[in-house]
Order: sequence, then structure tokens, then C-alpha cells
Amino acid sequence: MTDQDRLRGVFTPNMVPLDQQGNINEAELRRYVDWLIAAGVHGLYPNGSTGEFTRFTPDERRRTIAIIVDQAAGRVPILAGAAEANVRETLAACEYYCALGVRAVAIIAPYYYKLSPDNVYAYFKEIGRNTPVDVVLYNFPLLASAVDVPTIRRLSEECERIVAIKDSSGDLAQMVRMIEAVRPNRPEFSFFTGWDAVLMPMLLAGADGGINPTSGVAPELTRKLYEATTGGRLEEARRLQATIIRLFDAALYSADFPEGFRVGVQLRGFQMGAGRQPLSEEHRSKLADLTSTLGELLTAEGLGG
Amino acid sequence: MTDQDRLRGVFTPNMVPLDQQGNINEAELRRYVDWLIAAGVHGLYPNGSTGEFTRFTPDERRRTIAIIVDQAAGRVPILAGAAEANVRETLAACEYYCALGVRAVAIIAPYYYKLSPDNVYAYFKEIGRNTPVDVVLYNFPLLASAVDVPTIRRLSEECERIVAIKDSSGDLAQMVRMIEAVRPNRPEFSFFTGWDAVLMPMLLAGADGGINPTSGVAPELTRKLYEATTGGRLEEARRLQATIIRLFDAALYSADFPEGFRVGVQLRGFQMGAGRQPLSEEHRSKLADLTSTLGELLTAEGLGG
Amino acid sequence: MTDQDRLRGVFTPNMVPLDQQGNINEAELRRYVDWLIAAGVHGLYPNGSTGEFTRFTPDERRRTIAIIVDQAAGRVPILAGAAEANVRETLAACEYYCALGVRAVAIIAPYYYKLSPDNVYAYFKEIGRNTPVDVVLYNFPLLASAVDVPTIRRLSEECERIVAIKDSSGDLAQMVRMIEAVRPNRPEFSFFTGWDAVLMPMLLAGADGGINPTSGVAPELTRKLYEATTGGRLEEARRLQATIIRLFDAALYSADFPEGFRVGVQLRGFQMGAGRQPLSEEHRSKLADLTSTLGELLTAEGLGG
Amino acid sequence: MTDQDRLRGVFTPNMVPLDQQGNINEAELRRYVDWLIAAGVHGLYPNGSTGEFTRFTPDERRRTIAIIVDQAAGRVPILAGAAEANVRETLAACEYYCALGVRAVAIIAPYYYKLSPDNVYAYFKEIGRNTPVDVVLYNFPLLASAVDVPTIRRLSEECERIVAIKDSSGDLAQMVRMIEAVRPNRPEFSFFTGWDAVLMPMLLAGADGGINPTSGVAPELTRKLYEATTGGRLEEARRLQATIIRLFDAALYSADFPEGFRVGVQLRGFQMGAGRQPLSEEHRSKLADLTSTLGELLTAEGLGG
Repeated sequence: MTDQDRLRGVFTPNMVPLDQQGNINEAELRRYVDWLIAAGVHGLYPNGSTGEFTRFTPDERRRTIAIIVDQAAGRVPILAGAAEANVRETLAACEYYCALGVRAVAIIAPYYYKLSPDNVYAYFKEIGRNTPVDVVLYNFPLLASAVDVPTIRRLSEECERIVAIKDSSGDLAQMVRMIEAVRPNRPEFSFFTGWDAVLMPMLLAGADGGINPTSGVAPELTRKLYEATTGGRLEEARRLQATIIRLFDAALYSADFPEGFRVGVQLRGFQMGAGRQPLSEEHRSKLADLTSTLGELLTAEGLGG
Repeated sequence: MTDQDRLRGVFTPNMVPLDQQGNINEAELRRYVDWLIAAGVHGLYPNGSTGEFTRFTPDERRRTIAIIVDQAAGRVPILAGAAEANVRETLAACEYYCALGVRAVAIIAPYYYKLSPDNVYAYFKEIGRNTPVDVVLYNFPLLASAVDVPTIRRLSEECERIVAIKDSSGDLAQMVRMIEAVRPNRPEFSFFTGWDAVLMPMLLAGADGGINPTSGVAPELTRKLYEATTGGRLEEARRLQATIIRLFDAALYSADFPEGFRVGVQLRGFQMGAGRQPLSEEHRSKLADLTSTLGELLTAEGLGG
Repeated sequence: MTDQDRLRGVFTPNMVPLDQQGNINEAELRRYVDWLIAAGVHGLYPNGSTGEFTRFTPDERRRTIAIIVDQAAGRVPILAGAAEANVRETLAACEYYCALGVRAVAIIAPYYYKLSPDNVYAYFKEIGRNTPVDVVLYNFPLLASAVDVPTIRRLSEECERIVAIKDSSGDLAQMVRMIEAVRPNRPEFSFFTGWDAVLMPMLLAGADGGINPTSGVAPELTRKLYEATTGGRLEEARRLQATIIRLFDAALYSADFPEGFRVGVQLRGFQMGAGRQPLSEEHRSKLADLTSTLGELLTAEGLGG
Repeated sequence: MTDQDRLRGVFTPNMVPLDQQGNINEAELRRYVDWLIAAGVHGLYPNGSTGEFTRFTPDERRRTIAIIVDQAAGRVPILAGAAEANVRETLAACEYYCALGVRAVAIIAPYYYKLSPDNVYAYFKEIGRNTPVDVVLYNFPLLASAVDVPTIRRLSEECERIVAIKDSSGDLAQMVRMIEAVRPNRPEFSFFTGWDAVLMPMLLAGADGGINPTSGVAPELTRKLYEATTGGRLEEARRLQATIIRLFDAALYSADFPEGFRVGVQLRGFQMGAGRQPLSEEHRSKLADLTSTLGELLTAEGLGG
């Protein structure tokens, strides 16, 4: 394989609309998928952190992927979040998603328990050895066990099925260290940043794309940023990156993650319903304020309701 | 209710033996429960962090509780870990465990996503309003959203069904702050520490007991420590606390949690099987070393094989 | 030496009153020293963190000690904070303080740069080998390099002149680990906690005393707590500890440390002057609020103006 | 003023050679300054963190600046680290350095005590109001109080004498937020990164330069990286940045900071002497290993002895 085969572009870690009973709103989810694809996202990543995978049951996680694969119908690649309670359950999910036809699964390092690097390796090695479908590693040291550079190097050398990493640390130097450690042996391995605030510099430092929640709110802007940066139009890219930081900061820091992004998607015309985490009155009032702020930011970019 | 009704004593957050296929080893689990009760633990807390609740499926979590309640047969109270993917699933688990006859359920604050205090309140309030069974809050700020003092005060005032807190921060001053904030209104509310290394000073500062993993390995010692401390035999208590710190430190810091405690239970004569988290060779070698260390510590206390 | 020789009791890490030009107010400092001794503190620790040692010049630090030693006139032991820019300067300060007649110097682990444990050892070893006066180690991992248990064990074994540690981590288990590691070889070695909120449980776990900023504000209370605890009157001790937590929390968390303690000393009738760190208007307003809060807490304990 | 007036380029936070008595080695310091300027650094920043300012006395800090200003003789601008024990002492140092003819002083936010943002503002405002010379703010949240975005915005609006910030967080998004907050009002304000590992992406995101310890070891490389990046030769810049990360990581993570950089400067032919922090045998052995590693890295770049 060559570097032509790399996964590239901006993927949306998309949220799942719920109906008034708190169940998956299939019709709205299908409408949202169509809209994202039409707006130019390069792929979708359901069952991620933004997609609140931990708040759904194993059956619901499977159903979400089934609906999205069906609706996307091959127009864009799907990376299916496949982390389950343990390796056996995760591998069963990989098989199910493989049969559905996803491009790859994405698997976060073990969370709740913080594992040492050698056991993070053992975990992904066991998966890499048995998965029927390509795997994207997901490193989010803020919320889960860290995947360090020696671990990703070793996994990339030993497991052909492991083809990419999503790194949500936002650490530019760490991205360069990973790329330097992996690319010589695996030119087709892909590197994604999950930290929207640094998408431009990550691409300039050698990353292949982003899996970014703001792309679920303003896919037009993340697409433009990707194209301006990869096209070498740095002045335009800087302006777009600054705008995306404003959006990202507002959605991320005004409320418990990922509530702010739900507000953003709602503003683009989708009935997201109430999330599954009960919210305090104080928090509902914050979200009302955020609706104004995000609304103004979107309108200023010509993306108003 | 009065302070006579408080939950008290040392509870074991017990692990689940697995068979060679990685499934729950029911016979060994029943034998372990009998042994713990005979050794003097005051109660059991399955589906906790030590019990690796996140690595089992929802059905397995239910089955673990059913077996343990059946085997304990009323000899000691059972606190059933009931945290599921969301409030709806958690409440369904509460109903199931209530029907089985547990004394209470224990519910950790939301993890993976770190929530602000007001949303931690909203989460437990929703549960407190709808649970059919008493609830023990579980605060483990290292691994989950924190339950701060104003939150526990408010929940204790508004929710009669919330009757206790397990605090695993190990912070003595925080324990005193919680007790001062809650006891004036709720004399029967119980305070447990989950941090074995400070069980003696916590009891002296006013806590009612501990939910401590070393009690699953050396229940004889934690029982003696509890009795020496509550009986005012401080010199003896200091000696026992120092011994328990050695055991706890060895089990906790020599390997990824809770692998070291599995080694300890195995040393007491139970076939624990391999855990569900794949282990690196490096880690297996650490556990072999730990087997010697813990074996010597136990033998020195007359608890050898 | 035996355990009869240990340093014991509650020492005050005392602040330094300033005049309107921002210079040391010698008369008020002398008056404050007399008052503290009369109120029952067991010793004084000038040039500590509460005493803002980093905000004075080397000459001012020397002058502070000279005044206090002169005024105390042997009534209580003085521990002189002697940390300077490097080992050479620190040893020169040790010699100066030794000549003044202090009981010991106290030296914080290197700060600003966070050193590894082996270099913390090398630093104190160099000092321990050359000091003409007894040394108290000062461990405050929040603000300086940590002194871990193997390091303190090694230093206590190799350096007779190192006779005590002040630990401000507030970690009970760590205190027990240190005591277990050092006492068998050095029965006369002393252990102090710098964390007022856990003075009672620390004493019960085996510590010898505290070096606590609330003793500069309410020396009557910390003295009573010390005596109730060491006298085995635990119910009284618990009540006093809870009161001291309220005082400590108010002074510590309402403003940047140690501004809240300056407010407290001022409330006891001393002209402390403005501190050397410029304060924002917002902060001055916080201190005004704190004046009311602390005033009420002190009045409730019969310590009002 | 316009953006033409900005401070730009790569500045060296230079170390100070010591003689066998541990005193400043003036001859070697002068030789090092000449070498750095000849190798193409754009300026010097003595008395910074790399320069171990806290380990020198106030008099030594003044002497270091005097020697360097004299030796540089106007060939490159000097930023003099001027942080002293308190505002009064710091302002006295500013006056002294102003009289010597430095381009500006650089002042780290208060350290040891971690101040809230409003008091960080009050501190720098007091300095900004009274300084006779331009001031570079220094933000290093790992070791000192943080200078947050609202604080830098406010200071830049109110204090003309504050003309730049050195940010050592390594956080790209934070850099963009600062630039967006300040440039509209202060087009001539400069932004430097102190984190060598991200110099290229920082420049691409809009920063003006770096104040980077690797430039004291391999000034040829940091100069080339600066020119490749600002000249739009991104492929070359990526290669150079990766090389600098290898150097930086080796020097930073193999030993307590800044010992590894002293090894690097020594390798370039300067007698640095032993540092003032005593080193353990274990650490000296680490530094011997690092000498080989750094030596190979430098040789591979044609910078060998």
C-alpha cells in the first residue's frame, strides 16, 4: 500500500437525535446524515465521544451504525465506534460492523481504569490480531488510558489491520513524534486530530485530517479550512481556524461536553431532543445563553437558521 | 430514624472469579462469598470498581448480584453496584436488585464524561426520586465525576432514599466536611471510606466504616482494625493500619488496578481465573513478583496458604 | 537519643507585619511574637510559606529571624526557614541562624524546577553533610519538588543533623509510610503536618505535631486541639478539628494564599499592613468579605476583637 | 507603531558557564555570546528558566546581564530576565537593566504561590505602570502562575510598555486565542513560543518567533527552521522541526531541566562547569548517556565537535 490509500479529510463524530421518549429518532438521524454528506464532510464517525457512546446500550450502538451505514449508502466512509465492555464484546461488535460494510472501526483505549502502556498495547494487540475489519486507534488521554508513541509504533509494526489513529490530545509535538515513529514503515497509516482548535497546524505538521465535532455543526467551515490548508492558502486558513476556535470554545467550555454541540446541531435545523444526562436548571440556562452565542457566530459566517 | 440505623462496618467490594472460558465461575463465587462472611466482613459490595463492573455486560452484572444475594442468604447486607449506561437503565437495575432483596444499591457518579457539580446533582436527584431501594452514592474523583460537599448536602436533604456515601478520595478533611454538612439533618446517614490506607483515621474522624478491597484479601485484618479502632485500642489499631497500608500499597501500586487484588484473593485459595483485560508479558511478570510479596506479607500475619 | 527528645506540639508559621512603606514593622512583629507565645504556641517557624519567604530579600529574611529569636528569648524554640537561591547560600544562612541560636532550620525542597527524587536527595544530603544546625525537611509537593518516602528514609539514615520533617501534603497514608520508614532507626525523629485540616487524625496516626497557619490566627484553638487529641478526649477533638477546618477553609480558599491568614491575624489586633503582592480590586473585595466571615467564626469561639 | 516594529526571530535563553569555584565564568560567557551571535540567533534572553535565574543571587543576575550587554555590544537585542522577590525589587532591576541598554526585560508571572488571574493582572499592571523599559510577559503555567487570555488582553490594552509575550505552554490554540485578542489593538505586539517542539506550527499560526533552549545548543538549526518556515518551504521546515523535537526531547526528558541543555552547550565546545544543583550519581550517569545521544544527534546534523 502507498500513501495514496490513506484515510483523509474531515470526519464528523456525529450525535444521535432522540425522540420524546428518549429513543433514537431514526428519521431525524437519516436526515442529519444526508445533510452532513451534502455539506461536504469526508466521512462519519458514530459512537464516538461526541456521539455519547457510553450512554447507549450495546443494542442501541449497533442500531445507530446500521442506520447510518444504510443511509450513507457508500457515499462516504463510515468509522464505527466499536468499544464495548471487554475484548470479546468489542470483537463481536467489530464482526457485526464489518458485515454492515463500514470502512473501519474506531476503538478508544480502555477507560475508567487507567492502564499502563504495556497493557494498552496488549489490549489493542488482541484486537488487532482478531479483527475482521480495519481499526482506527483512538487516543484521548483526558478521558481514557493514553496510547503513547512507543505503543503506537509497536502496534503499527505488528498489526496490519490497525491503519490509523485519532489523537484528541491537541498536542502538536506528540503528533509529529507519532508520524515520525510510524510513517517510515507504514506510509499508508493515517493520522487524525480530534482537537478542532488545532486542525490547521496539525495538517501543516503532517496529519491527514480531523475527526472534529465542529464539523457536525458547521461542516461548511471545516471543509473550507481543510481545503485552504491543504491547498496552501495559509492566510485564509488562519482566518478560518480562528473562527473555528471561537465556535469550538463556545460549544466546549460553556457546558458539560457534549451538550454544547447538541445545541449547535439543533441550530442547524435538527430536532436533537433532550440528551440522556439529566441537566440542572443552571445548566439549561447556560445552554439557552449558548444558543444565542452560537447562533450569532453561525449567522456571522452565513450559516444562520 | 436514628444513628442506630446506620450502615456500619467493613464491606468487601468483591471480585468475580472467572472460569477458563472467561465466564463467571458461579461455584467459586459462592465459595468466596461464604469464606468472606465466615471471615467476618460486615457486608458485600459487588459490581464496584474492584469488581470490574465496566468489564461485564449488563446481564452479567445482574447475574453476579443474583448469585451473591442467593448465597449470602441474608447473613450480611448486600450493596449492589447499579451504575448502567444512563438513568433509565440504572433505574431498571435498581428495580431488579430491589426485587432480589439487596440492602441498597451503590451508584458511582457519571464517569468517562466529567460532569459539573450541578449535573452530578441532577443525575442523582433523578435517581433518588425514582429508586425503589436505598442508594449509596459513590464518589471516586480519580476515575469519575466528583460529588462535592454542597452536592451531597443537597441530595441528603432532598432524597430520603439516599442513605450513605462511599468516598474513595482518601481525603480526611473532605470526610469531615461531608459529615459536618449532612449529619445535623440526617443522623442515620452513613459515611464509608473506599481508601484502605486511611481506614483508622477515617473511623476516628467520624466515618462509619469502609468499603475496602484489602478486606477481600485479608478480611481478618480489616475486621480487627475496625474493632480495635472503634474499641479505642489505638496502639493496636496503628499497627494494623500500617500492615494494611503495606498490603494495599503492594496490591495497588505493583500492577494496573485491580489486578493486584486478584492476585491476593488467589493467594487465599480461590481460583480467580484470568481477568478480562489482556495483560502484557511485562505485566504478568510483575504479577508473579507480586505473588511472592503478598504471600510473604500474608504469611507474616498468619494468613498464609 | 530517644523519643523524649522529639520536637513536638503546634508551631506557628508566622507572618511578618509591614509598615506603610512596605518594610518590616519590627515593633508589631515583636508584639505578635509575645502574643503567640502567651497564647500557647509551642514554637515559631518564620520564613515559611505562610511567612512569604520568597517575597523578602535575603537580608530581610535574616533580619526577621534575628528579631524573632531576640524577642522569643528562649521561651519557645525557633525553626528558621533557611532556603536560599542555592546550596551555598542556604548553608551560609544556616550558619547565620545557628549563631543566632535557633533550635533548627527548616528547608523546603527545591522549588520552581521540579526535581527528581534522586536530586532532591542529593540536595539535602549536601546540606545535611555541612550544616552546623539541625535541619527540618519541608515537603510541600503542591508548590515544590516532592520528598518521597525512600528519600526521607535515606536522609534520616545518613544525616544525623536532619531531625524532622514538615509534610504539607495532608496525606495521612503518606505520613504513616514515612513514620514506618524512619522511626525504627531514628526514634527521636519528628513528624509535623503542615495541613491544619487533618491535625487531629495526623496526631492519632503517630505524628508529633503541626506547623499550621491557623495557629497564627487562633493559637488558643490549635493548642486545645493538640491537647484534647494527645489527651485522648476524641469527642472534644473532633469538635475542635471541625471548627479549625472551617477557619482554615475560609482563610485558604477565599483568597490567594496567604492573604486570608493576614486578614485573620489583623482581626486578632495586629497591624499587618498591605502585603507585597499587589491585589486586584476584586481581590480586595474578597478580603473584605472574608473579614466578616472570619470575624464571625472567631467571635463564635470567644476569640472576637 | 506598526507590525514592522515587532520583535521577531529566535532568541536564546542562554545558560551561564561557571568556573571551578561555582562562580560566573566571565571569559567563557563572553565567548559563548560571540558564538551564538555568529551562529545566527536573533537575540539573547539571559536570566530565564534555562538560565537558572532562581539559582543565582540578585547581584549575580545583574552581573550576568551587564556582561552580556557589554559583549553583545548592540549586535543583537537583549531581553533581560528581571523577576526579583517582589515588585519593588523587580522595578529596581528594570531600572538597572534599562540603564545598561537592554531592548526589554522579560518577567515571569509570580511563581511558588499560584495566583489567581486578577492578581496576576495586578502584578503586571503595577510593573507596566512604573517600568522605564519595555516588558515581555512570560507565561509558563507548568512552573508559575498562568497568564490567561483575558489578562494578556487587558494588559496589552492598558500598558504601552508591555510589548510582547513569551508563552511556554506549547498550546497552539492558546497562541491563536492570544493573537486574536491582542493584535487588533496592538499590531506591533509580539508573540514568542518557548516550546521548541512546536516552533514551526506556532510560526505558521501567526507567532513572531521563539525563545528556545535548543537554539543555545544548535543555533544553526533553529535559524534554518525559522527561515524555512517563514519562507514557506514547509517540507524542509517539517524535517527540521522533527530534528529539533529529537534534540529537545533528549535534552528535556533525559534529566532534570535544564541539565540536559548544559550537556548540549558543553558538546558545542564551552566549559559550562558543574551546575549549582547537586546531582545524584544516578543523574550523573544519565547525563553521561545523554552526552552520547546528543553527540550523535548533533553529528548527524553536521554539528559535531
